[in-house]
Amino acid sequence: MAVHHFIPEIYYNTIGSHEAVLTIKDGDTVVTTTVDAGGMDSSGQAVAERGNPMTGPFYIEGAEPGDVLVVYLDHMNPNRNWGWTSNVIAPNVLDPEFISQLPDKETIRWNVDLKQGIAQLAEPTPALSNLKVPLAPFMGCFGVAPPKYQAISTATSGEYGGNMDYRGFVAGVTAYFPVFTKGALLHVGDGHAVQGDGEIVGTGIEISLDIRFTVKLIKGKRMYWPRGESDSHIFTVGNARPLDQAVQHATTEMMRWLKDDYGLSVIEASSLLGQCVEYDLGNIFDPAYTMVCKLKKEFLP
Amino acid sequence: MAVHHFIPEIYYNTIGSHEAVLTIKDGDTVVTTTVDAGGMDSSGQAVAERGNPMTGPFYIEGAEPGDVLVVYLDHMNPNRNWGWTSNVIAPNVLDPEFISQLPDKETIRWNVDLKQGIAQLAEPTPALSNLKVPLAPFMGCFGVAPPKYQAISTATSGEYGGNMDYRGFVAGVTAYFPVFTKGALLHVGDGHAVQGDGEIVGTGIEISLDIRFTVKLIKGKRMYWPRGESDSHIFTVGNARPLDQAVQHATTEMMRWLKDDYGLSVIEASSLLGQCVEYDLGNIFDPAYTMVCKLKKEFLP
Amino acid sequence: MAVHHFIPEIYYNTIGSHEAVLTIKDGDTVVTTTVDAGGMDSSGQAVAERGNPMTGPFYIEGAEPGDVLVVYLDHMNPNRNWGWTSNVIAPNVLDPEFISQLPDKETIRWNVDLKQGIAQLAEPTPALSNLKVPLAPFMGCFGVAPPKYQAISTATSGEYGGNMDYRGFVAGVTAYFPVFTKGALLHVGDGHAVQGDGEIVGTGIEISLDIRFTVKLIKGKRMYWPRGESDSHIFTVGNARPLDQAVQHATTEMMRWLKDDYGLSVIEASSLLGQCVEYDLGNIFDPAYTMVCKLKKEFLP
Amino acid sequence: MAVHHFIPEIYYNTIGSHEAVLTIKDGDTVVTTTVDAGGMDSSGQAVAERGNPMTGPFYIEGAEPGDVLVVYLDHMNPNRNWGWTSNVIAPNVLDPEFISQLPDKETIRWNVDLKQGIAQLAEPTPALSNLKVPLAPFMGCFGVAPPKYQAISTATSGEYGGNMDYRGFVAGVTAYFPVFTKGALLHVGDGHAVQGDGEIVGTGIEISLDIRFTVKLIKGKRMYWPRGESDSHIFTVGNARPLDQAVQHATTEMMRWLKDDYGLSVIEASSLLGQCVEYDLGNIFDPAYTMVCKLKKEFLP
Repeated sequence: MAVHHFIPEIYYNTIGSHEAVLTIKDGDTVVTTTVDAGGMDSSGQAVAERGNPMTGPFYIEGAEPGDVLVVYLDHMNPNRNWGWTSNVIAPNVLDPEFISQLPDKETIRWNVDLKQGIAQLAEPTPALSNLKVPLAPFMGCFGVAPPKYQAISTATSGEYGGNMDYRGFVAGVTAYFPVFTKGALLHVGDGHAVQGDGEIVGTGIEISLDIRFTVKLIKGKRMYWPRGESDSHIFTVGNARPLDQAVQHATTEMMRWLKDDYGLSVIEASSLLGQCVEYDLGNIFDPAYTMVCKLKKEFLP
Repeated sequence: MAVHHFIPEIYYNTIGSHEAVLTIKDGDTVVTTTVDAGGMDSSGQAVAERGNPMTGPFYIEGAEPGDVLVVYLDHMNPNRNWGWTSNVIAPNVLDPEFISQLPDKETIRWNVDLKQGIAQLAEPTPALSNLKVPLAPFMGCFGVAPPKYQAISTATSGEYGGNMDYRGFVAGVTAYFPVFTKGALLHVGDGHAVQGDGEIVGTGIEISLDIRFTVKLIKGKRMYWPRGESDSHIFTVGNARPLDQAVQHATTEMMRWLKDDYGLSVIEASSLLGQCVEYDLGNIFDPAYTMVCKLKKEFLP
Repeated sequence: MAVHHFIPEIYYNTIGSHEAVLTIKDGDTVVTTTVDAGGMDSSGQAVAERGNPMTGPFYIEGAEPGDVLVVYLDHMNPNRNWGWTSNVIAPNVLDPEFISQLPDKETIRWNVDLKQGIAQLAEPTPALSNLKVPLAPFMGCFGVAPPKYQAISTATSGEYGGNMDYRGFVAGVTAYFPVFTKGALLHVGDGHAVQGDGEIVGTGIEISLDIRFTVKLIKGKRMYWPRGESDSHIFTVGNARPLDQAVQHATTEMMRWLKDDYGLSVIEASSLLGQCVEYDLGNIFDPAYTMVCKLKKEFLP
Repeated sequence: MAVHHFIPEIYYNTIGSHEAVLTIKDGDTVVTTTVDAGGMDSSGQAVAERGNPMTGPFYIEGAEPGDVLVVYLDHMNPNRNWGWTSNVIAPNVLDPEFISQLPDKETIRWNVDLKQGIAQLAEPTPALSNLKVPLAPFMGCFGVAPPKYQAISTATSGEYGGNMDYRGFVAGVTAYFPVFTKGALLHVGDGHAVQGDGEIVGTGIEISLDIRFTVKLIKGKRMYWPRGESDSHIFTVGNARPLDQAVQHATTEMMRWLKDDYGLSVIEASSLLGQCVEYDLGNIFDPAYTMVCKLKKEFLP
């Protein structure tokens, strides 16, 4: 159970079967950093190409297709005191008739006060001068190498994870990914200091992170979509367009979970989910949208 | 500001320009009952045709197209100790490949304990014998007569409200509807003792209700989709298929609200919503799906 | 088999259980006229409210829920020498990023030369001065009263037909509708002199028509969506949003047709459709989109 | 203008920045073969991994990001007398309620008679014993390396082409692709002897091909989605889910074409397309669906 302190030197803008930057063992912990979506590090220097450059991939010894990779998100801390966002809502979340009202978009700066735990616009207009958004840092884009030796842009997501931009992936949460490639090849990055549901301006407050995570393997366990677990909930993640299909993926994966691990029949799972399920909108901006199907642990048998 | 005690005798299965059952004034309160989605009343008797039979319509004096009808949901109490649900998850929320695993659906009974505030399966399987779902009664279907003298099935929803099945319409919430017809013609019904997000089994725990609501008119205010306000949030409701379009309607309505009533520019509203917005999945079962766009009041200027 | 010469005096902007304007018998023929989508008749006078005003409804004696109404479209002739269109493509068929390039839309006039069988812009720009579009008149909106005594705007469509804007409904074609109400209550209107696939500017060349149609009943035949038959093809019509769901409705109805009337198994129908099916895009403008599933008759067993 | 006779030895199941198998010049012609979707060659031997293995990539000298690659599809001939299909319609083109009627799918064989130009089931049931489908061979999957050094599964498609399964890509047609990578890196494969619209059983009649194509470069021409030209039409291709978005991509690309190359304003292009446009459904089976926007050349200014 080694703890690896890893300093990234190269970054990939695709998630794929790239040469691993570090080989670790089942149970190991990695302490490292991620740059922001634009490739800027803790000092604000551009050290990677823009578009969600990834730290990694990390090769997990013993991981094989058909296994599940467990990723404990131990810590996730912004390592600088500012971030940036876009300032115009995405046209795809508005009625087509409203879109012509949108101005050209620009990048704006936010001050991130780690002590007080809030973010504020660096140059607020009078109307927004009192806006204080509580920090809730999470990982926007992470996952394992997709099947068939594909290398897929970190703009999008799929069964392998990727750019889900789901604000539930905070420190303390455990993420599960199906393994498609020898070594699993975990990539991590795209930290957000905070974000609303759906990432509807196309960004959270983009920021570089100090992170620590621990990996574990579950051998020979069939899973189709990313899953997660927090103190209060279990959840499943569907990535697709349109949202309807993202809901289908997430809900089907939750049905499988309740069936395989909790022994519920379709009728039992239906009765449980029908009255107790919750859904979160991860993102409705990226090429694949993200919907999350959640269930409070207190309702589990 | 009269209080009308109204006992319904007829029920409509469409929302439309039907003859009003009662005429009330701006500011008046109505105390009445609703039957469940199957037409059964507090004693379990079938007194109306199944398919969300509505109490009403109520004619509000002075209401004209171009006004807004405000409906304060004062009380909403189940008036019997049982409800019913379907017991199989809807095929449209599952991957097509999974659907053949679904058994035929049946109606099942739940015990509704009003004192303890929980619902339990009347005949639970061992795995679900401890399932206790906290009650959270809300109105599944309500709204005003749609434009053009249409009469639209209470299976679906639109700009006029209707079968939104959004579990946020609980007692204490204020709902706002655009008025399309003289008198507005408010219809109410389809009570649920509780429901998960999305109404994914096609029902909440269907139940009859004692309700009390108060109406108010805002003259000459342009609004396009239902809105609501709770202690903590303002929210807007989009009803359409697919979910993507429901998101567009709800988000555009929120943009208008922030612009018209709070004076925010598109850029200000974008910065605010981008990092603070929340979305709820109302229903993903009915002909029109429902997405809700929410903002905590503490973030309002 | 009477031939009724009917001169309309009132027009409805919903399809619903309105009082019939004429009662006819199984096998009867009706010779009548329709006004254009804006309510203008052969002389260009506005005689009805804009928004697809309908001629009818016609009550067919003996028609009952569970029957099928057959409508032979005998003749369909523009009865004036001009029509109109919108001049800007609809934002919903364009990428959101392109929409801000759209100017405000206006209504423009087309000359309709019935002898030569072509339409030309009344005031063409130099680039379009040679544009001659061959006429292909069809009925944009027609159908029977929907179930549950609904009255639904002629802006949209459903199982009952309505505003499908499918350019395959030309003279010579036979249309089939499921009957939901006593008397079926057939409504007809919204003639187009010609139209591209999808009605992507929101109109065809809108025009008033002289029409002749003949009705027939098929008693006790279960059908879910409109069907049609031309000299060359059988086809089924799905009306819904998004297009994916319209495809599902149309394809499922074709599967039923091949199964019920041609005795094919699912595997046989799959082999046949898989290599021989055609799809037409009816409209992608109205609240419900329309997709048509077609099969050449020569491939039928 | 060399003619290269190329015999493939390796095949890729992704479209990406792989090492080129042959370098050719602007204007050159390639004569080669493709294996079928299952990796079987003209003799029926499995020589590549299943899942649309590609012949290529071909490196075109001088091609750079920002150019357009023109591919003339000179010849495309099945090189064996049989093909195969799936025998069950895909669940995603059916109403969810119908899906449970689908049997398990199997692969079935078709006889391909190149002299008569027809395909017939190898083991037809009585009802389909007379089914003769006219051959219309086309390329199901071809395109250039996607941006950002991605390598994307040949199951899907995008701006770079890929698995569009559009039956309009027959011999005689010219295809245009935006170039994203030095050398363009053209991949070709997935021949179909014939296919219905939409590829609704998930396959055409899958077959190996002898092909001949010629490439040309257009330097410095901005294009976003694949385009094509036949004797009768120009067309644009949109690849995405849902179909609505595929329509948006294709229509926007056609607007750009009419604007940039024919000098039409948005209003002129709207008037033209509104009454003259045609749409084809390429595929509604693959991860990205394909819609094609077409215009008869006779309508071009």
